Amino acid sequence: MIHDGRLRAGDALPSTRALAAELGIARGTVVAAFEQLDGEGYIHTRHGAAARVAATLAGVPAPHPAAELPAHHRAEAKAEGLIDLLPGVPASNAIARRDWRAAWRHAAAAPIDDAYPDPLGLAALRAEVAKQLGFSRGFAPELERVIVTAGTREALSLVVDALPPGARVAVENPGHRGSRQLLSNAGAHAVPIGLDEHGLVLDELRAAHARDALAAVLVTPSHQYPMGTVMPIARRHELLEWASGAGVLVIEDDYDSEFRHHGAPLPALAAIDPSGAVVLLGTFSKTLSPALRCGYLVVPERAPIADALRQVRTAHSSSVATPVQHAVAWLMSSGALRRHLARLRRDYTHKRAMVADALVGLPGVTIGGLAGGLHALVQWEGERDEASVVAGIRRRGVAVAPLARYVADGSGLETRGLVLGYGPVSATSLGQALPMIAAELRRS
Amino acid sequence: MIHDGRLRAGDALPSTRALAAELGIARGTVVAAFEQLDGEGYIHTRHGAAARVAATLAGVPAPHPAAELPAHHRAEAKAEGLIDLLPGVPASNAIARRDWRAAWRHAAAAPIDDAYPDPLGLAALRAEVAKQLGFSRGFAPELERVIVTAGTREALSLVVDALPPGARVAVENPGHRGSRQLLSNAGAHAVPIGLDEHGLVLDELRAAHARDALAAVLVTPSHQYPMGTVMPIARRHELLEWASGAGVLVIEDDYDSEFRHHGAPLPALAAIDPSGAVVLLGTFSKTLSPALRCGYLVVPERAPIADALRQVRTAHSSSVATPVQHAVAWLMSSGALRRHLARLRRDYTHKRAMVADALVGLPGVTIGGLAGGLHALVQWEGERDEASVVAGIRRRGVAVAPLARYVADGSGLETRGLVLGYGPVSATSLGQALPMIAAELRRS
Repeated sequence: MIHDGRLRAGDALPSTRALAAELGIARGTVVAAFEQLDGEGYIHTRHGAAARVAATLAGVPAPHPAAELPAHHRAEAKAEGLIDLLPGVPASNAIARRDWRAAWRHAAAAPIDDAYPDPLGLAALRAEVAKQLGFSRGFAPELERVIVTAGTREALSLVVDALPPGARVAVENPGHRGSRQLLSNAGAHAVPIGLDEHGLVLDELRAAHARDALAAVLVTPSHQYPMGTVMPIARRHELLEWASGAGVLVIEDDYDSEFRHHGAPLPALAAIDPSGAVVLLGTFSKTLSPALRCGYLVVPERAPIADALRQVRTAHSSSVATPVQHAVAWLMSSGALRRHLARLRRDYTHKRAMVADALVGLPGVTIGGLAGGLHALVQWEGERDEASVVAGIRRRGVAVAPLARYVADGSGLETRGLVLGYGPVSATSLGQALPMIAAELRRS
Repeated sequence: MIHDGRLRAGDALPSTRALAAELGIARGTVVAAFEQLDGEGYIHTRHGAAARVAATLAGVPAPHPAAELPAHHRAEAKAEGLIDLLPGVPASNAIARRDWRAAWRHAAAAPIDDAYPDPLGLAALRAEVAKQLGFSRGFAPELERVIVTAGTREALSLVVDALPPGARVAVENPGHRGSRQLLSNAGAHAVPIGLDEHGLVLDELRAAHARDALAAVLVTPSHQYPMGTVMPIARRHELLEWASGAGVLVIEDDYDSEFRHHGAPLPALAAIDPSGAVVLLGTFSKTLSPALRCGYLVVPERAPIADALRQVRTAHSSSVATPVQHAVAWLMSSGALRRHLARLRRDYTHKRAMVADALVGLPGVTIGGLAGGLHALVQWEGERDEASVVAGIRRRGVAVAPLARYVADGSGLETRGLVLGYGPVSATSLGQALPMIAAELRRS
């Protein structure tokens, strides 16, 4: 009814009590359905007020449930005084103010360019990125292979523009909703592929390719979002071998490779691909701040798409302000980013240990994603569906995300899990929140 | 041969002498043809070396002569010691360094956001933009109507994404090549419409709509680029009335409205449209610096596309870094931008007068575009084609752009004119360049 416009933005829904009576079902079922719709961003529910259709959906022909976590979720969590464990944001405030100010002072001192910036990016920043990849990701691309982008989303849209129109791109399911949507907006087709404990299920990938040729496959091998899987080295090689043989482009979203809580990070796909055909996407959103809108893309060494990517970028011109590029390059070259990352890692490692201590070992509960990053996946064997558990945790005062939010529409995948982020939360608040989550899980 | 791949990037072309002999034509004709290809970015010519196919065209299926003025033109002009009168860039260095540094200090002092920025933009910046439009463009949109963008190109790509796929969009011919190309890249169809001394020819527009319905028309009424026309108020009303009746969206690129050398600027189309269906695009590229990648879009008051635009922006998330938005908002609220614009206007008015003094009154020569902005259009009645005049001026030591560079491919429009920009050039260099241009024009 929202999709076909019979319900419009701001329209009030009947009360759960009235709707339950009208449909002859339990009120709890209606409450759960409302919570699900709220979780997916279709409606807003508020204690003591009628639920309303979300404003952002008004007047739009096709439904595009926008970002992973629409801003209103966070705003509402804040307004309701909840402890915000919604995933997807880092602890940006951890950067030393002195370094941050120095970076912008440095940027302001650079000559003001009267020309459009180099579409491929500032050479100083590209050199720092190449050097950093050499240290941390096992390969040091030439400067010409690095393109500065306004983050992973823009990088992905450049890749789609460089692919043939209507290209089929395999994506992880569950996975990043924003990426799937961006693919569709840009005229590509997202083909959801299931996951197991090692990441993408390659048999499903092969079957999807056999049905109708794939142009590319988008993967997050460092730390799958939201499942938290790290793709083992054997599967990495198997994926690369298959993609090379099938002529399918591998797009490696190197998400979360910077945060690894034990062991050394595995090499990037781009580092171990003998055919030189992987596009690597990186971002400063999680290491510095999403508000910087700055990231990078490494074009493949040998694939024909490399020239097309540079060409598309040149045609669009850069969308990253030169002062931002100067500031980030300075944070890298001065060592400020390295120091900041070390602090962040300590902070995340500590909070990750708190999550493990509080939740690991609860009967029937499994905790995933703890190998790295800034989120954890909680699953349970009990009967209760996730909307009800998420709602229960919310009633206790903590906001977390249902796993269903990451499932591709129409793929029919059923989930029972929740995702909690421990990026920006303080250890004190996390310490308050975890027992509440544990208590609710004991009821599941 | 470049298009179909028989000539590849970096391939050397035969010498003009050899090619002339082989084809049995005058060497001057071959030189002119090479200069034209160079002007359009297909090849690079260098004194004393073989001409080569341009590198940026390598490995790409369809030809996309990228930006209006590929960076290599500017780089070559500089390398050859030419005075650079290539149009399209402002005098960014005119901003007071003290103000510039203060803006970034202000931006660095703001809290570092650990969330993605508001996709519609920082409220402080949107409020400044709305206020400024009230002062200068005759209408004060509500805050909700202003969206911060990474410049006009990104704004235009948001509009295209909010239109139905394959939408036909009328564009000015000659006009901004980058915009036409962006439309095609984004899956729309650019429909070139001719111009007269008052701007877009409305009979041609109506005919194009009758042949196959247009979704939108993109116009630069403040100062057409490159013809320099200012659309008179009568044509503005006529365009709006037709568009409203035909249900065609008007996209107003408010290019150059800030620089007007005599008389008050005409009101924006968005200010006088009774149907409230104009999208206005503005940028800080020409008033501050293209390196800032910051601009704005004002969604229409009443057209259904308003909600679709906000929705598309939310789905893509903002590409403008929060510190950039803080810096620009500060430059506006502190009055620094206003002072800077006043200085720029004095500078441009002075240089515009130098252009008029040197070129107006040459026999058979007409100078257009002097009413505002930072470029002039020079046309002549003589026999010589523009490639030869542009090449002659280049041999004398000055780089200007042939008008052909702005003509839509396949529209068959023949031009005899050149475009010169006086944004970043110093008055001293301009004073040296103008007599050389005049001397070459006397030979045409």
